[in-house]
Amino acid sequence: MKMRISEILESLRISMGVNGAQWYLADTADPHASEYVSPHYAEREFLSGFTGSAGTLLVGIETALLWTDGRYYVQAEKELKDSGITLMRSGDAGVLSLEQYIEKYFASGDTLFLDGKLISAEKGLRLKKALSSAGCKIKIGRNLTHVIWKDRPADSAEEIRVLPPELCGCDYKQKLKDLKDALAEAGAEACVLCALDEQMWLFNLRGRDIPCNPVAYAYTVVTKQKVSLYAKERAVNDELCAFARDEDITLRPYEDFYKDLTDLHFEGAVLLDPKSCNFLILRILQRNGNRTVCADSPVKAAKAVKNEKEQEWIRKVYLEDSAVLTRFLRYVKEQGAGQDELSLARRLDEMRLSLADCSDLSFSTISAFGPNAAMMHYEATEEHSDVLKEGGFYLVDSGGQYDGGTTDVTRTLAIGEVPAELKKQFTRVCAGMLALQNAVFLSGAAGRNLDILARQPVWEMAMDYKCGTGHGVGYMLNVHEGPQNIRTKLQPGQTDAELLPGMLVSDEPGVYVAGSHGVRIENILLVQHKTENSDGEFLCFEPLTWVPVDLDAIDAEALKPHEREWLNAYHAKVREKLMPLLRDPEDAAFLHRATREI
Amino acid sequence: MKMRISEILESLRISMGVNGAQWYLADTADPHASEYVSPHYAEREFLSGFTGSAGTLLVGIETALLWTDGRYYVQAEKELKDSGITLMRSGDAGVLSLEQYIEKYFASGDTLFLDGKLISAEKGLRLKKALSSAGCKIKIGRNLTHVIWKDRPADSAEEIRVLPPELCGCDYKQKLKDLKDALAEAGAEACVLCALDEQMWLFNLRGRDIPCNPVAYAYTVVTKQKVSLYAKERAVNDELCAFARDEDITLRPYEDFYKDLTDLHFEGAVLLDPKSCNFLILRILQRNGNRTVCADSPVKAAKAVKNEKEQEWIRKVYLEDSAVLTRFLRYVKEQGAGQDELSLARRLDEMRLSLADCSDLSFSTISAFGPNAAMMHYEATEEHSDVLKEGGFYLVDSGGQYDGGTTDVTRTLAIGEVPAELKKQFTRVCAGMLALQNAVFLSGAAGRNLDILARQPVWEMAMDYKCGTGHGVGYMLNVHEGPQNIRTKLQPGQTDAELLPGMLVSDEPGVYVAGSHGVRIENILLVQHKTENSDGEFLCFEPLTWVPVDLDAIDAEALKPHEREWLNAYHAKVREKLMPLLRDPEDAAFLHRATREI
Repeated sequence: MKMRISEILESLRISMGVNGAQWYLADTADPHASEYVSPHYAEREFLSGFTGSAGTLLVGIETALLWTDGRYYVQAEKELKDSGITLMRSGDAGVLSLEQYIEKYFASGDTLFLDGKLISAEKGLRLKKALSSAGCKIKIGRNLTHVIWKDRPADSAEEIRVLPPELCGCDYKQKLKDLKDALAEAGAEACVLCALDEQMWLFNLRGRDIPCNPVAYAYTVVTKQKVSLYAKERAVNDELCAFARDEDITLRPYEDFYKDLTDLHFEGAVLLDPKSCNFLILRILQRNGNRTVCADSPVKAAKAVKNEKEQEWIRKVYLEDSAVLTRFLRYVKEQGAGQDELSLARRLDEMRLSLADCSDLSFSTISAFGPNAAMMHYEATEEHSDVLKEGGFYLVDSGGQYDGGTTDVTRTLAIGEVPAELKKQFTRVCAGMLALQNAVFLSGAAGRNLDILARQPVWEMAMDYKCGTGHGVGYMLNVHEGPQNIRTKLQPGQTDAELLPGMLVSDEPGVYVAGSHGVRIENILLVQHKTENSDGEFLCFEPLTWVPVDLDAIDAEALKPHEREWLNAYHAKVREKLMPLLRDPEDAAFLHRATREI
Repeated sequence: MKMRISEILESLRISMGVNGAQWYLADTADPHASEYVSPHYAEREFLSGFTGSAGTLLVGIETALLWTDGRYYVQAEKELKDSGITLMRSGDAGVLSLEQYIEKYFASGDTLFLDGKLISAEKGLRLKKALSSAGCKIKIGRNLTHVIWKDRPADSAEEIRVLPPELCGCDYKQKLKDLKDALAEAGAEACVLCALDEQMWLFNLRGRDIPCNPVAYAYTVVTKQKVSLYAKERAVNDELCAFARDEDITLRPYEDFYKDLTDLHFEGAVLLDPKSCNFLILRILQRNGNRTVCADSPVKAAKAVKNEKEQEWIRKVYLEDSAVLTRFLRYVKEQGAGQDELSLARRLDEMRLSLADCSDLSFSTISAFGPNAAMMHYEATEEHSDVLKEGGFYLVDSGGQYDGGTTDVTRTLAIGEVPAELKKQFTRVCAGMLALQNAVFLSGAAGRNLDILARQPVWEMAMDYKCGTGHGVGYMLNVHEGPQNIRTKLQPGQTDAELLPGMLVSDEPGVYVAGSHGVRIENILLVQHKTENSDGEFLCFEPLTWVPVDLDAIDAEALKPHEREWLNAYHAKVREKLMPLLRDPEDAAFLHRATREI
């Protein structure tokens, strides 16, 4: 029988007492600051019952609080019910941040206990500062949850795959050389890489340790003389050994990393990215007297710009993915009301995974009808899967991991005839999506400059979506990646990255009305060079997603003439690009109808 | 006879040698970090011959460089010709910043000499950091230019005016209380105010020490117990003495400020704004062991939000100013080609200054035809004043200091029939101006979020204007004020201020084609509450400027339908609001024609 959250927290509080701590912090984290964590690291979920992909739990002797962002308000409210945990809506007016809470409510002399591997160096430093100004202490030690967590899932160590050159476009030698140049530029001689996707990218490897994220647990230390890759022994196969031998990479056991790091003394400065390196790594390096340069990882920036070969693969894969989704949309529209969310999600997942080059989903499919779609990251389950009804919106946000790219796409469909007000909202969201997709901008612009193009039509209705408009997308890697993003404001620790040709960003405005409905339309865009003159270089977007936007949900009157032209032009291209991929004449007929000029 | 720039620089270099300095820095600055400086402080202009309102001159033993921004490239190129001074285009790709130049070109051991009063603390700290990383020293001392500058204009000390309550809307007592609250909030007990407009605002005083800026030279020290105002003795009249006595303000001579400051020891932390306090003040405070809090001045933030009374006055004054400009535009359009820039500027200035409540211009009128309009801050002079010709654009950017507000407005007029390409550019600039004016945005948005609304139509033509879209505007104060602005990127030291109800911003996109033409259309906007719901508070803009946009320069085909509606709606309101102010039937007829529906 499952333990109740209140029981779990009581057990934790006993451990806290034994360790002389008044507070315990559990972030959503593994030792690599991964956005999505494997079940083995789902500590915050185990302690709180909240299943969202982002949230920070703070447990005190008498109190417990969970911070999460706008995507999860509705879901967190539901899941935290009866847990005794207070929901803190990050970023809402008047809501204290974790640091502000510490400064306001911690008593002088209090101790906060945390697992230093399970928090990023950046967050750790921010906490330390807040604690110190409140006269409190931080204690870094072994994880306190581990002993309570009887059925904790085992850690994963799947075999690592060496990517064939035809999928890469840039070999490890070149990437290592570029990295060393970037380190020199930043005044460093060495670096520690902790983010899993960065290491996968650098070595052209892929793993399967985190569901939907083709990464393997690893640490990397690059010095002038030597490159050491720490990987789990079960994950290392002959192929990887041969690659490491050929490329002069020292393979070391994952478990030995912290011991090795403690013994290491770097000659020059060592660069680490405080956003992806965990707090323990920073503390070990500093304790040993190493000179550290805290800076954005050069690998992160390099990885975000896709090379020509990658771009070719991505175009091909997105087209294939668009065809699958379009076939699925036809199914949903034709079956109409009566279907249930979970069966639909499973059908779409099977359609994707039946493709020869699709090995996994890129995240758990969001298949949500009516009020469920107001929860941005809703997931239908065996226990709860609603049935589609006439007059509502069905939202599906999904993607796959392909040999040749990671996809992500959202469409919202009208089931039967939907009320005029919903149509209007859908139409304005569509206008926002198209406005961003058609933007022309000067090189140097960041996502913050562009965000309003997608958001303005929503703001004009006196509505807002409490999340960013767009995120970067990995290449056969994580579906969310930085440094680029399209947001109104930066969140703490986020940087204002310029949009560079070769970067991918999602374009996904929406409206979310709690208890009623949700609309999101998402295309993935590739930043492209447009023209250059004495005023500078101008950039634009190439859409990668080619899926019809449901015209049954469009109120043509609510489109400005140029927006209507954008939509018709997009649909004409969808038809042109997708038709050759649809063999079934009924699919073709659907596409024809779905992309008609309005 | 005027000394040549090369001779001046040679004399300066001798002084530098005597002082053991290899480098000398002259910023555009007075001791109060004023944007516009009085002739007495025009050191950078004296040394370089460059007359723009922004620029930093660095003089070395063999070299001299001047950094200025995009508004002044064309003008600076012209004025620096034959001076031996290299123009550094700030912000252009590949152009080193001053700090980067220091790090790259200064030899280890070099000394940079500067007048610590004539550079802001923030710039001083940045310089110090760059110098220290280049192994160089900074030497703060008496101004080196003073001895060379034989005909240096005398310093100004005009009488200070105490504003009548009916012009204020908020009295000094309340403002002081708010300031003390803000200081406590920032963890400080005292503050030093150096910015002149902040002091004028706090005390409800006005001066006349800087042309077009109704400010008086002053320093203010606020502690828990005492408020000291340092003013020039000649500026202090009976009225000010009585006010100071009533309000318990200690009046001290301006000249004694640095001596007093050196002797002062503050009980708690003292707040100073490094952007407006000069470097010497910071050094004195720190040398004396005072704890300093470097933060944005709370007065700056408070001053930017206009109270209800101020808003009433501003509306009235902007309408009056709009009527004057409209009458002037009629004159220009009717007279057409053949007039000269300087005469036109003088006519407009006279028209404004003949109004009973207009005491000064808010900046030197920009009256520019053809290629001259490509220089954003061009000023026609006796020596150079071009004649308007058929087929070109005439740009006039001007404003007044009124009892009840500071105005700023730009219009561009077609003289005769202009080429289609110019019309198209004008039309797209107009579309950008209208898009920003009609924006709806969520509270919390900053100017950086909104900038693209005005700039997108210009970017779509693969053009860009190398300046911000908008700036704050003072109330009976400086025509440029912060903290708000509307820009793509922040400049060093600029903060990302949220737009708050009650703030003014200018909305002035443009195109500038060197050697050919310039277009700028500028309205001033007041941030207003629009509506509030569970998604937050939504804001919008109330236009304050009511002046026709020249329809002869509009290519109706280049307007999207909703843009045409915006323009027609704006013109209908211009007509409605302005008509009662125009007594001359021919002015009324002009307004009628100029605001016709298209």
